[in-house]
Amino acid sequence: MNAEAAVSQAPSLGEAIVARINELGAISETPDHLARIFITREHRVAADLILGWMREAGMRAHVDAIGNVCGRYEGLEFGLPCLMLGSHYDTVRDAGKWDGPLGIVTAISCVAELNRRGLRLPFAVEVVGFADEEGVRFASTLLGSRAVAGTFDESALGKTDRDGVTMRKALASFGLDPHHVGRAARTRGELLAYVELHIEQGPVLEDQNLPVGVVTAISGATRLAARLTGMAGHAGTVPMKQRKDALAGAAECIGAIEQFCRTDEGGLVGTVGYIHASPGATNVIPGQVSFTIDIRAPGDAHRRRAVTDVVRQIESIARRRDLQLQLDVTHENRSVPCADWLKSQIADAIASEGYRVLELPSGAGHDGMAMIDIADVGMIFVRCRGGISHHPDEHVDVADVDAGARVLLRMIDNFRPRDMAQ
Amino acid sequence: MNAEAAVSQAPSLGEAIVARINELGAISETPDHLARIFITREHRVAADLILGWMREAGMRAHVDAIGNVCGRYEGLEFGLPCLMLGSHYDTVRDAGKWDGPLGIVTAISCVAELNRRGLRLPFAVEVVGFADEEGVRFASTLLGSRAVAGTFDESALGKTDRDGVTMRKALASFGLDPHHVGRAARTRGELLAYVELHIEQGPVLEDQNLPVGVVTAISGATRLAARLTGMAGHAGTVPMKQRKDALAGAAECIGAIEQFCRTDEGGLVGTVGYIHASPGATNVIPGQVSFTIDIRAPGDAHRRRAVTDVVRQIESIARRRDLQLQLDVTHENRSVPCADWLKSQIADAIASEGYRVLELPSGAGHDGMAMIDIADVGMIFVRCRGGISHHPDEHVDVADVDAGARVLLRMIDNFRPRDMAQ
Repeated sequence: MNAEAAVSQAPSLGEAIVARINELGAISETPDHLARIFITREHRVAADLILGWMREAGMRAHVDAIGNVCGRYEGLEFGLPCLMLGSHYDTVRDAGKWDGPLGIVTAISCVAELNRRGLRLPFAVEVVGFADEEGVRFASTLLGSRAVAGTFDESALGKTDRDGVTMRKALASFGLDPHHVGRAARTRGELLAYVELHIEQGPVLEDQNLPVGVVTAISGATRLAARLTGMAGHAGTVPMKQRKDALAGAAECIGAIEQFCRTDEGGLVGTVGYIHASPGATNVIPGQVSFTIDIRAPGDAHRRRAVTDVVRQIESIARRRDLQLQLDVTHENRSVPCADWLKSQIADAIASEGYRVLELPSGAGHDGMAMIDIADVGMIFVRCRGGISHHPDEHVDVADVDAGARVLLRMIDNFRPRDMAQ
Repeated sequence: MNAEAAVSQAPSLGEAIVARINELGAISETPDHLARIFITREHRVAADLILGWMREAGMRAHVDAIGNVCGRYEGLEFGLPCLMLGSHYDTVRDAGKWDGPLGIVTAISCVAELNRRGLRLPFAVEVVGFADEEGVRFASTLLGSRAVAGTFDESALGKTDRDGVTMRKALASFGLDPHHVGRAARTRGELLAYVELHIEQGPVLEDQNLPVGVVTAISGATRLAARLTGMAGHAGTVPMKQRKDALAGAAECIGAIEQFCRTDEGGLVGTVGYIHASPGATNVIPGQVSFTIDIRAPGDAHRRRAVTDVVRQIESIARRRDLQLQLDVTHENRSVPCADWLKSQIADAIASEGYRVLELPSGAGHDGMAMIDIADVGMIFVRCRGGISHHPDEHVDVADVDAGARVLLRMIDNFRPRDMAQ
């Protein structure tokens, strides 16, 4: 029996992790649906639970200046740079219980396993449970990881929640000093890498019949708001060739976006999620249609080219149909590539656990988008049923939880910092 | 100077008609927008005004059992069958003032002109102002003309308006006996034809630079409600080829409907006026989309074939995209062809007035849809600006009003009943 097989035969991590996911999943604003929002009573209860698990795993742990839970497992020497693991423990409203917590609980379990084996590594291992990734309360995402990366925007402290409470006030009543958010910041020298395990939130792993995969990049996104204006008219009296039907125009745009993205081989996705036709009556030709466009690609140049092409096609459709077009970029964020050396170590861990290595982009955003500013980023995806997320039906099989934990543990075990890896 | 030119040089009917249209247009539920609804105070005021105009034109006039205003100008002998002219004097809410009243006022002006000239014809001329065509109050259209055609549905008396008042109660408080609606009915033997002058409510005459046109048929209509169900998903995480995007499917259907109708040369029109995508968020692939389809054609067989083809295309799109389809017919009405012999006499009148004869279908519904049950139907369309109707911007130039009146007057003057015409 070699060393690798020995690791695989350690007591199953999966069941213990699922038990903790269930414990965290019960901490919710309302009993009938899961909602655990930044700087609330539930935030505090969850943080205390996680602190306890970290300490039980042999880590020093504290809540930092923005409400993140931070645990540290020292290496062979005290004060070594760390491999930072983590994810977030806030949720959307009516959430699933896996999105975020799985990465925190799995990382803690891996550290507990190192601790159980009395193993100290030539680097420290830190686990962070980020306090806010979803941005539900203050409509501002990645608050926890931005604070750690030192890119927290102080002006966000003035933002208010739906009850008119400012973030500044909320932090203070939580016992945190809003003037000291900067103290949560870490420096590049303290981190060897940031590695996050997360559910895929998509159907690719399920489709490929794989429990885990290596993330290539967190896709950047561009969102646009489009409005086409034609001429409303009676559905019976205006001949087809005299119409300026804004909905027929929008339909052609939607078809063009879909067609353009379908023929791309590089992970480009384009979505029209919202549409409104006005006046919106059965017997009236729509005079105006508004719709949104969401375009994502693993690479920024790729996405920008795609946006340019899509905009050009929409402009051409509007011109040909004699429709007025208003088209605005409402949101844009860069893509975050995962570091090759980390992808390679994650791939090795996956292969060693006996799985085929599949690389896939992350279309959803993650804390790595902030952490990239102070560390190279790697991500491990775990299969979730039907690709469903942000929904109570979100589910991960215990066998896949276990597979994810074994991959992460092996990756930590075999981790070589960038300088040694190259 | 021949007789025809003499008619053209009669004092302009247009200005007098426009003055009366304005008078009627001022009778409204609210001063800021035009709404003249069935069996209301405004209905009564408008009926009294029209009664006065009819009597001034030398007609006997009364309000019938459903609230229609009926005027009769006897022919060479008392009690001859009549050429019936008419239109409706109820309106939609926030209406234009021309839709309906133009046909009544023009017909009365033509009779007044016959009377002024002391002319009696070998047939009577009747003018009907129908009390309800739009169906605003009781969500049931053509109440006035159905009563005259003897096809009034007595069960409609139990329908309630938005205040919960039944039609039965409304009629009674108007001074009409709901048990006697049947007395408004006329018989086939009493009518030689029903001819209506109406604004086009579409842009064809304007496009062809013509003040008037001959209607070929009132198009039948089929309305369908479609619902496509796919799979909602994260706009970033589901690859294009793994999506079941209900909105992309609906967009393809809308494109197919438009394309199918555009390539038809026979007056087919198809409209998707309403669409709703669910959940309707920028970053979520729509899992379900509902939309309506309105298909009209001058001929029933033509429309039914078109509906069958469109349904087949939608089914094929849904099947190919693996979307569930629910498709229901929510409304259907037959087309009403205008009688060839009436079209021919209207065309002669148009040509004699010096205009090119253009035949066009009516995509909108009219009282002829009910009158067809007791008489052959003919219609004259008058150009309206921009094809706009059911809107305060509805407008007809006085010159076009005059052209319409001259055509109608000449048509009456030269009218030969069917047996004589054939």
